[in-house]
Amino acid sequence: MLHAVVMSGGSGTRFWPQSRRDRPKQLQPLAGETSLLQQAVDRLEGLVPAERTWIVTNTLQAEATRRQLPALAPEQVLEEPCGRNTAPCVGLAARHLLAIDPDAVMLVMPADHVIGPDDLFRDAVSRAVELVSDNSRRLVLFGVPPTRPATGYGYIRRGDPLESNHKGHHVTAFHEKPDRATAEKHIAAGNTYWNCGIFTWRADRILEALAEHQPELSVGLERVAAAIGTDDYRQILESAYDSLSSISIDHAVLEHSDDACLIEAPFDWHDVGSWHALSQLSENDPDGNTLRGLVTVVDSSNCIVRSDGDHLVATVGVEGLVIVHTPDATLVARRDDEEGLRRLVERLEEEGRGDCL
Amino acid sequence: MLHAVVMSGGSGTRFWPQSRRDRPKQLQPLAGETSLLQQAVDRLEGLVPAERTWIVTNTLQAEATRRQLPALAPEQVLEEPCGRNTAPCVGLAARHLLAIDPDAVMLVMPADHVIGPDDLFRDAVSRAVELVSDNSRRLVLFGVPPTRPATGYGYIRRGDPLESNHKGHHVTAFHEKPDRATAEKHIAAGNTYWNCGIFTWRADRILEALAEHQPELSVGLERVAAAIGTDDYRQILESAYDSLSSISIDHAVLEHSDDACLIEAPFDWHDVGSWHALSQLSENDPDGNTLRGLVTVVDSSNCIVRSDGDHLVATVGVEGLVIVHTPDATLVARRDDEEGLRRLVERLEEEGRGDCL
Repeated sequence: MLHAVVMSGGSGTRFWPQSRRDRPKQLQPLAGETSLLQQAVDRLEGLVPAERTWIVTNTLQAEATRRQLPALAPEQVLEEPCGRNTAPCVGLAARHLLAIDPDAVMLVMPADHVIGPDDLFRDAVSRAVELVSDNSRRLVLFGVPPTRPATGYGYIRRGDPLESNHKGHHVTAFHEKPDRATAEKHIAAGNTYWNCGIFTWRADRILEALAEHQPELSVGLERVAAAIGTDDYRQILESAYDSLSSISIDHAVLEHSDDACLIEAPFDWHDVGSWHALSQLSENDPDGNTLRGLVTVVDSSNCIVRSDGDHLVATVGVEGLVIVHTPDATLVARRDDEEGLRRLVERLEEEGRGDCL
Repeated sequence: MLHAVVMSGGSGTRFWPQSRRDRPKQLQPLAGETSLLQQAVDRLEGLVPAERTWIVTNTLQAEATRRQLPALAPEQVLEEPCGRNTAPCVGLAARHLLAIDPDAVMLVMPADHVIGPDDLFRDAVSRAVELVSDNSRRLVLFGVPPTRPATGYGYIRRGDPLESNHKGHHVTAFHEKPDRATAEKHIAAGNTYWNCGIFTWRADRILEALAEHQPELSVGLERVAAAIGTDDYRQILESAYDSLSSISIDHAVLEHSDDACLIEAPFDWHDVGSWHALSQLSENDPDGNTLRGLVTVVDSSNCIVRSDGDHLVATVGVEGLVIVHTPDATLVARRDDEEGLRRLVERLEEEGRGDCL
C-alpha cells in the first residue's frame, strides 16, 4: 500500500518573526490561507488517505503539528527528539510503516515546499509508484525541470531510460548546490533536474539500502524499531536518536545506489527559503508590494508587508523592505538581506532574547 | 497671584501612531520618561504651585489629562468642547481665574514644547512677572533667540527697551512663518526672536484687550463666564464655544496692541513637530539611531525606532526610517516625510480606518 511520509522537521528562522523555533516555516500560512504542511497533506487527496499519511517532526513541534492536522491520529505524527537530517527521518518512518504494512511503499516529501498544480504532482506520484511496482528495488527521485540557474538547489543528471519502463530514467550524477556558472552549465546540458527532495520507494528496500550503505545508522534505527509499541519506546528513541549520524538520504544512500532512478516531475516547485523568495510566488499590487493582513501602504514599492490579527501596519515612502508584524515581535528589514537576518538571530541570542526566536 | 495656564488642546496626527486624536502629542512621553504635558507642569515647580496651575484641553482629552496630573483638582482642567485656537482658550482661562482671583497674573504656555534648562525658563518667567507688576497693561511675549533659520516658527522683532524696565523691549513687528531666505534675513537682522507662544499678563488686562480688539469673541466669552459655577455651565459652554472665532491670541490681540512687549528667553526651545525633529533632540546610538523600548537594530542607521511594552522591534539593514510600534498600529516611514504621513492619515480616513487615528 502507498503511504505518504511528510518530513516536517525544519526549524529555521529565515521567516522570523513569523516562524519560530516551535512554530517553523512549514506550520505557517506563508503562501495561501493554510500552512505549508496543511497544503502538503491536502495535495495528497485522492492519492493517499489520511490513515496512511504520516508526519515526521521534532518533538518540540509535535503538538502544534497535531493541532493543524486533526484528521490524522496522534500516533501518525512521529516524533524525532532532535533533528538528524533526512536519512534517520526516512529510516524511522520506514520502520514504523513496516511494523503495520510489510508491503508499504513510501512517498517521501518535505512539508515546506510550494508545489502546483496538484494534478501534475499526483500524476508524477502515480508514475513513481508504477516504477516501484515494476521493480521493487527502485529508489525513485523526482526531478523538476529547472527554469533558471538556481544556486540554492541540488541537481541530478538523467541517464538512459529504464529498460523495463520508459517512464523513468537512470540517475548518472548528483550535483551539490552549484555556483551560478555551474548552474548555467547544468541547464545548458539539458539533462539535469532539480532534486526536489521527493522520493518513492518500498519501506523494506530503503531499510535494506541503509543497512548496506550506513550500517551504523541502521543499527541505531534497529534499536528504536525493536521498541515500537512498547512502554520503553520514547526513552529508547531519545537515547538512540541523538547518536545517529546527521546525514541526508541522498548522501547516505542514493548517491551510492545503482537503483536510483528519476521521473520527470513537471510541476512548479519552490523550496521557499526567504521572504524575498516567497514574495516572488505571491500576488503583488501594482507597485510590486506583497501585502497581507491589515496593511495600508502609501508611496511604497516592492515591499513585503504582513500583519496579523487586528493590528494595522502602515508604510509611507519606503521601498524594498520586508515588514512582518506578529503579536510579540516585528521585523523591518531589507527584503533581500538573508545574511542580515541570520546576524539578527545571532544578535538576539547574544542579547539574551533567544526566547523570541 | 501668578497662575499658570497650560494650553493642551493640540490633536495632531504628526506623531501617529504614538499620538492619536484622543491621546495627542502632549500626552505622550515623546522626549523623556513623562509626557510633554507632565514636563510642562513639572517645569513650574518652585514658580507656581499645583493649586494655581490650570490646564485647558479638549473635552475628548480631559479624562486622560486628569489621569496624568493627579496633583491637580479635576476642576483645574478646563475643557473646551472644540478647538478654537489660542484666543478663546486664553479668554476662557482668564475668565475662570478672575472668578477666584481678581489680581490673577497668567503665565500662558503650550503643553507640547520641549524646553530646557528649567532654571533659564524660571528666570525668564520671573522677569516677565516683574514687567507686569511694573505696569499692569503689559502683554509680555517670550522671545527665543533663534539658532537657525527655521521656517516653521513665527518671528517677533524687538524694538527699543521699555522705558521703566530695561529687562524688556517693545515689539515692533510680528512675522508669520517665513520662507528660508526671509528667515535668514530675520536672523541676520539680529533683533528678531522666535515667538514661542509663552506669554505673561494680567487676566483682567487680556480680557480688556480681547473686548477692545475682538468684541464678538468677547461677548461669547462673557456668556460662558456668566455661567461659571452654575448647573448650566457645560451646556452654555458647548453652545457658545462652537460659534467663537478660531483665532490665535497673537492675531486677535498682540499684533494690534501697543502694550505688547518681549523679554528675551534664552532657553532651548523646540516646538517638536515631527518624528524627524524629535529625534534631533534625543540621544542617538553611534549609527545615528534613536531607539526606545525593546528594540534590536542590525546594520541600521539614522532610524527612529520605538516599541512599547514587551513587543520586540528588530531592524536589519535599513536607513533613515521611523518605525513606531504601538499595541494596535505600527508605522514604517521615511523619517523626513511629513507630507507622506499626512497622506497616510487621509488614506486611513478614506479606507474607513479613522478609528486608528
